[in-house]
Parts: sequence; structure tokens; C-alpha cells
Amino acid sequence: MKIDAPRLHRRIAALAEIGDTGDGGVCRLALTDDDKAGRDLVLTWMRELGLRVEVDVVGNITGTWPADATEAPVLTGSHIDTVRTGGRFDGNLGVLAGLECIETVITAGTELARPLAVGVFTDEEGSRFAPDMLGSLVFVGGMAPEEALSTSDRDGLVLGDELARIGYAGPIPCPQRPPHAYVELHVEQGPVLEAEGITIGAVTGVQGISWQELTITGQSNHAGTTPMHLRHDAGAVAAQIAVAVRDLATSPGGPHVGTVGRLDLHPDLVNVVAGRAVLTVDLRDTDEAVLAAAEKSFAEQVRALAEAEGVEVATRTLARFEPVAFDEALVDLVEAIATEHGHSVKRLPSGAGHDAQMLARVCPSAMVFVPSVKGISHNPAELTSDSDIEAGANVLLDLLLELATDRLQIRKRSVAGSAEGAA
Amino acid sequence: MKIDAPRLHRRIAALAEIGDTGDGGVCRLALTDDDKAGRDLVLTWMRELGLRVEVDVVGNITGTWPADATEAPVLTGSHIDTVRTGGRFDGNLGVLAGLECIETVITAGTELARPLAVGVFTDEEGSRFAPDMLGSLVFVGGMAPEEALSTSDRDGLVLGDELARIGYAGPIPCPQRPPHAYVELHVEQGPVLEAEGITIGAVTGVQGISWQELTITGQSNHAGTTPMHLRHDAGAVAAQIAVAVRDLATSPGGPHVGTVGRLDLHPDLVNVVAGRAVLTVDLRDTDEAVLAAAEKSFAEQVRALAEAEGVEVATRTLARFEPVAFDEALVDLVEAIATEHGHSVKRLPSGAGHDAQMLARVCPSAMVFVPSVKGISHNPAELTSDSDIEAGANVLLDLLLELATDRLQIRKRSVAGSAEGAA
Repeated sequence: MKIDAPRLHRRIAALAEIGDTGDGGVCRLALTDDDKAGRDLVLTWMRELGLRVEVDVVGNITGTWPADATEAPVLTGSHIDTVRTGGRFDGNLGVLAGLECIETVITAGTELARPLAVGVFTDEEGSRFAPDMLGSLVFVGGMAPEEALSTSDRDGLVLGDELARIGYAGPIPCPQRPPHAYVELHVEQGPVLEAEGITIGAVTGVQGISWQELTITGQSNHAGTTPMHLRHDAGAVAAQIAVAVRDLATSPGGPHVGTVGRLDLHPDLVNVVAGRAVLTVDLRDTDEAVLAAAEKSFAEQVRALAEAEGVEVATRTLARFEPVAFDEALVDLVEAIATEHGHSVKRLPSGAGHDAQMLARVCPSAMVFVPSVKGISHNPAELTSDSDIEAGANVLLDLLLELATDRLQIRKRSVAGSAEGAA
Repeated sequence: MKIDAPRLHRRIAALAEIGDTGDGGVCRLALTDDDKAGRDLVLTWMRELGLRVEVDVVGNITGTWPADATEAPVLTGSHIDTVRTGGRFDGNLGVLAGLECIETVITAGTELARPLAVGVFTDEEGSRFAPDMLGSLVFVGGMAPEEALSTSDRDGLVLGDELARIGYAGPIPCPQRPPHAYVELHVEQGPVLEAEGITIGAVTGVQGISWQELTITGQSNHAGTTPMHLRHDAGAVAAQIAVAVRDLATSPGGPHVGTVGRLDLHPDLVNVVAGRAVLTVDLRDTDEAVLAAAEKSFAEQVRALAEAEGVEVATRTLARFEPVAFDEALVDLVEAIATEHGHSVKRLPSGAGHDAQMLARVCPSAMVFVPSVKGISHNPAELTSDSDIEAGANVLLDLLLELATDRLQIRKRSVAGSAEGAA
């Protein structure tokens, strides 16, 4: 059984027309008129297929087949909201490939042991309403619906009001009943698969995130008249800290990635020693112990650098999420199916956050990645080749079939040998 | 013979009232109405003393005594224009102390072999019209008057028009006849003298300046999904370059100072690897060979860092001035007089530019520094103690007397022994 690739590509193109930014990109911020139009289109397709369409209190949509199913479904899906300068694949692929898989199963007349469902989660990007992954977080009980509904965007518009305005304040309560399992197809949004010539990523989990903002206070001075040994140069310490972050992330045992993406000097003039510097530090790892150790080592280095220069450093936590590990058996299954399909496959963690990490709190979950050209994402240039999309959707299809026919236990035993052989 | 310290302090306070910013500071940008008012006040004092007042084609003012002198004078002075957030001592001290010295000589009835003159140079700060030290540059023939007069400020107002508007477009042509010698009293604008508890700085010269702007182009990427080895992180390279500048300036044989005062990342977001970074590098040294070697070493390091990260670096020269060495005999004389007065004294280069470096092109020149509290300058908090001002003005007085009585050759011989003993 194979998906109908042209049909999937047509749906991706049709959805991308809503919020089209004219440069290949899409702007469909959560709960805007464009989000409503996108949701309406996806619902039309769900209804045409005869799925049971349900909307919950925070606007998460599920389409279930068979429509009269009562058992917990095998759920797939993702989101269709985008960042302001988004692409056409991030999120949308997971929703539309899920729909395509269900249509393929329906068309084939296959009978399954469990129902299938495709979900569209509200406000995954968090570009309009914080936090990101809000819909799936509420879906699994990680946030009270009331709290989510009272969240405001930067213009003071309230999520609950906007949800009602676009007609997606549904009756289904949250947290919802946990699905039997959750699997999500997504573009990698990073360069690893393309760089290594790999078609399918078997996602092992989502990295933990540590975001800090450091404000360094030194002494602003004349760059010509102040000798080096009398300086309290906030800019020099900021640079040393940025280099320390880089060294930390490239050292054995260090965090997977470390980034200083923001760095501002004051007064930011060529001939003035900076009196103040603000920088952010983004550390990520799949292992909480590694992430915590990196934070500790980093804090010690900052202390030493600050003391050596005679500056003050104030640190503020901007975000802190522990790593999420996906279900081992499901990750193995992704790997096995991809291999059976003749694709190259690599186990890798996700650097970005996804709805799957929220679903992992309540059911066995996993993700399938397909390559992003040049690793570009959150950008109109975001691209995944047609053949990679087809490959990923077919892996998703077999994954759903395996899970819905409860053949996983059998599969696990047969896979164990080949996985060892490949390692 | 000693200067009248209260009279000098009164004049400093009176001049500081013009353009008073209410917080102890002064804003008297070149060729504004406040500059005119300041010039008018200084001219009133010059005329009250019976000096011969002359204004040249770019507005430089000289007050000469005796009024009928024809010989090249021993010139002192500085400037009375300030930066937008200026203090009351930078420049003003040199002009008013020079005036005070001449008044002291007149009052004492001392007869000198050479005339004395005090100069007020136009637009030293360069805050309104570029370049800085414009008036003294034209005075010595380093820039054609026509070029200076056609310079515009950021509002498009032309220097020549502004000069005429405030009534200071004078008849004296430039370049002017070189003075016999030039000596200038100035606040240090740096922390060295105060930090070492020294009263008088015998300024050995003005550092050469090398200003560069570097634009680093890498690849903007997701900070979570892009592994370290696949990054082309413009921000990381900027930080490494800033650390390299610091290391260069603190290494033996390196330049006296090195500063990265500006550093901007794009897009400057916590979770995005910077695709572009712009930073400035300010290197200074009193030795042209050291400065040139530092530039060369720096360029090599930048090349290596860029290659290692796979980024492009474009370098633009913003400014390049060779170092100026003051007259050895005059520097010795400053040291000897300060020592005779019972003051601690230190030979040091000037980190900032001064009119004296322009005069050094045409006559023996030197400067006397007095301490700046906390090294603060170009700031309303700029401060030099009353006693240090008095000490500096009395050193200037004896310096002028020595030069105007042609006793320098005798002095040089007698000083040689004690200078060796102190070294």
C-alpha cells in the first residue's frame, strides 16, 4: 500500500496558498483569519473523507476514522500555524501526510484493529501566543484550558476571544483521552540529513533547552585613553562568554549545541569601551544530566571571567525544558520501516520543539523526519524535495498500519536482530 | 611667579555657564550660538588684557602679547568647543590656563625674549564637522581652508556659512606662520594619572589610530537543529575576533590598546545562529611599527578564524592616523619643571587626539596632562581637582617662561643628569 504522492503535493500547494507571502513562504499566525481559512480547508478535506471531526476547547482539531470509533486511536498530525516568515512544510506536512495516509487506508478498504486519527494542534509555533506547543500542551493536561484561553498576544488580543472569533472554540474538553500512540512526520528544520545524504530521520527525542540572558555591567570608557589593565570591559567579557559557549558545545561531554544568538553592546561606539553588554545563551541536549552539567560549568566560567575583568553579571532564565525521549520501540519501528522501504535512515534527536514531545507525556510517541534543503526553516526558502516527502509519508503510512494492527510486538522481535547488525 | 588660581577657576566656571546642560556638563558644539557666546567671552578677556586678537579664515583665534610683537610667538591654547555631552575642562582648561599664564606674566611685568600667544582652535572635537582637530589641521597647512569651509554637518549646514553667521570668519590666511613652539595643558581623559597618584603627565606623543569595521557573513540557522560542525556562525567568529583583539593588546609587543566597541548580530535572536555580524576594531599605539605589526597579525588571525568557520569577512578602514611624537627636549622640560615644583610626574602617551599633534607638524610641541577623576571625560561628570588644575597651570607657566626666554638649551643640559637618575 502506497500513498498518492501527487494528491499530497496538491494539498500542500493548496494549503500554502492561504497566507501566501508571494516569495514561496507562508504567514499564517495562530487564530488569524488566514489560520481560520487554513483550518476550514483541512476540515473540508476531513469531512469529504468521512472522518469524525472534533474540535476541543482550545481549538485542537481531530479527524477520526472510522467515524463511529470508540477506542483510543492511533493519532498522527502536527500543526498548520506558521511563524511570520514561515515556509509551506513546517507542520503542514505532518497534518496533510496524516490525512493522506488515512485516505490511502480508506481507499484500500483495509480493516484495522484500531481507529486512526489526524490532529491539527493550535498555536504550535508560539509566534503569536506564548508558550509554543500550546494546543498539544493543553491536549495532554500540561496546561489548564482556562490559562491557555486567557493568554494575550502582543496587541492585547486574548486567545479565547480570537478562537471564538474564528469559530474554533469547540466543545471537546481537555485534557483529552490519551491516544493509543502518536507519530508525527515533520521536516527536519536542520541540515543533518541532507549533509549526510540520508532520507529518513528516526527521531529519538527532543532536546532539553536552557535559555539564559546575561547582562554584564562594566565601566564605559575612552578606548584611546584607558589602558587595558584599568578596563572593566563588558564587551570583552561578552565575547569571552560567547567563545566559552562555543567551546562548551564542541568539547567532549558538552551539550549538543550552544549558541549566542543575541549580543548587544552599549553604547556600541567604535571608540568607547562598552559599559554594558546583554547576550543570550541557548544550550540544548537530549540528556538532562549533560544539560545540567553544562549549565553548571558555564556558570562557573562566567563567574571567573567576570571576576577577572571586574564586571558584574546578572543572569536571567528565559526558558528551561527538560529533554524528552521518544518511545524506544517506536523509534526502532521507524528505523526498521525506513530500511525495509530501501531508504537510508539515521537516528537523531530533534533540535526544535514539536507537538510530539507533549503527546509523549501521555502515550508512546515518535517522529519521522525528512530532509530540509540546506537545513533552512522558518523561512520562505524552506524546502523538502517531492521524493523525500513521498518517502516520509509512506514510512508514516506503514507506521500507522503497524500501530493500528497491533503488530508492534511481533515487529519488535524481528527487528531486534537487524538493528544490532546495523549498529 | 605663580598663577592666580581663584581667577582661573572663576573663568572656568564662567565659561561653563555657556551651554550649561544643568548636570555639571556643557554642550557647546562648534560654530553654534553657544560657541559664539563662548568665543565672545574669551575674546573679551583677551582684549581686557591688551592682547592682539586675530581670527583666521577658519575661525581659529589667537591672542598675542605684546600686542605689537612681530616674532613667532610661543603658543599655548586648546579649544572651547565640546562634544554634545561634554564636561567643563576638556579644551577649556588649556585655553583659560594659557590666558591665565599670560595675565600672570603681564601682571609681573616680566620681560621675555619672545612673544606669548594663546590660541582657540575651531572644531577640535569633530562632533559637528568632520574631521576632528579641523582648525589646527588647517592652521598648520594639513587641510586647505576651502575644503574645511565647505564641510557640512549632518543637517547639511556648511562650516563656512556657520562661521560667517557667528561672526568668526576672520581675515588671517592659513596655513599660519609656524609658532616658535607649542605647549598645551589638557585633562588626561583617562585613568592613568589618578590610578597611580600622579599629579603631572609629561605627554610623550599621541598614539596612532587604526579603526576597522569588519562585516562577517555566515549562515543564519536554527540554534536547536544545526549541529556545531555544520555551522557558519558569524556571531561566534565576531566573538573570537573580539577576544583576539583583547589578547593582541595584552600581549608583549602588542599595541597599547585594542577595543571592540561595536558589535551587532543579525538577526539578533536567542534561537537563531547569527548569519551576519558587524564589529569595529580600534587599535592604538605610539609606535607606527608596532601598530602596523598589530594590524598585520590581526588580519592573519581574522583570516584563520574565518576559514575555520567557513564565513566571509569584509574589512573596511574607518580611520588611520600615524603616531605623533612630541619634541623630546620639551617633554624633558615638562618633566623637569613638574619635579622642581615638587609634583609627581609620569611620561605617558595621549590616547586621545589633540590640537598639539597638528602643531607638532610645524614646531616643537608638547603637552601637560592633569588627572581626570576616574578617567571620565566627554561626560558631565568630567572632573579635575582644583589643586591639580593649579599645579598644571603653574607647570604651563614655567614652560612658557622657559621657552620665551630661550633658556631651553641650558635647561636641557642640567636636566639630563636628573632624568637619568629618575629612570
